[in-house]
Amino acid sequence: MTTEDPVWLSSEELRVWQALHTVLLLLPIALDRQLQKESELSLLEYYVLAGLSEKASGTARLSDISFLTNAELSRVSHLVTRMEKRGLLRRRPDPDDGRYTNAVLTGEGRDHVRKAAPGHVAAVRQLIFDGLGDDGREELGRTVDRIVASLSQVDLPVTPPTPPEPGTGSAES
Amino acid sequence: MTTEDPVWLSSEELRVWQALHTVLLLLPIALDRQLQKESELSLLEYYVLAGLSEKASGTARLSDISFLTNAELSRVSHLVTRMEKRGLLRRRPDPDDGRYTNAVLTGEGRDHVRKAAPGHVAAVRQLIFDGLGDDGREELGRTVDRIVASLSQVDLPVTPPTPPEPGTGSAES
Repeated sequence: MTTEDPVWLSSEELRVWQALHTVLLLLPIALDRQLQKESELSLLEYYVLAGLSEKASGTARLSDISFLTNAELSRVSHLVTRMEKRGLLRRRPDPDDGRYTNAVLTGEGRDHVRKAAPGHVAAVRQLIFDGLGDDGREELGRTVDRIVASLSQVDLPVTPPTPPEPGTGSAES
Repeated sequence: MTTEDPVWLSSEELRVWQALHTVLLLLPIALDRQLQKESELSLLEYYVLAGLSEKASGTARLSDISFLTNAELSRVSHLVTRMEKRGLLRRRPDPDDGRYTNAVLTGEGRDHVRKAAPGHVAAVRQLIFDGLGDDGREELGRTVDRIVASLSQVDLPVTPPTPPEPGTGSAES
């Protein structure tokens, strides 16, 4: 990325970037509000629970959760403390390496995310897929795949994740 | 959004949602890192400066900035305090209504965002548009427009913004 001779965005690129920027800003807010209102979970808390629920052990290192949430480890630690107080998970030393702390889903946490999943999936469907149709879904998939590919070529502090599957892993069984 | 009889995502919808989720998570991180590295600004700070630079007065209420950054007013207040200490902006009571506080861009802040803009635009181009081509850009624009339309039908605490124009408003003159 050079700062010499910048190539400014065309008016069409600018328009698309502004629309994408709006989605980046508002989609998480909308998903968060649905979860807060219907399930008393923030989007971040939902993804922590959903991520844990997809692991056979229901367990993950806090450092791995830190990545998932794009949050500092200290912030994740506070989040996990609050979730522990609500009985949704427990903190335990990692049995394989005591320097690490794991979060372990409780039965109550599993029930909670399972009950939250349908509403979250309905919001994802309403906000993203209902307005797109089959062609739009394919177009969206094609274009975001290319952006993910571009992101994977950048030296990021993290590797692209597989986000939790809303309403599948957490709702199975 | 009902929690009865949930309609889970199809495997294709799930795949697209995961890719979009990855973009939501990593694109801001990538843009933030470029700005931090090359311009000593966070993405949030850049958008505050760029937003101010596009107003003829170089002025905005903190409460309006709060929306732009999807951040609590208290967090924006801290951010603006730090930026004021760096000389990038000043806080002033709103002359039209003293209950509000405005942020006013300084000459130094204007210079800073102007110098930062080319690198930011290059990152936007590299991460989003270079891999897409004309057809991809049109597809992306079409699909994100539809998601923005869906978002506008939801009762959000905010109205969809016009994000600052990276590298146009801030680089003009």
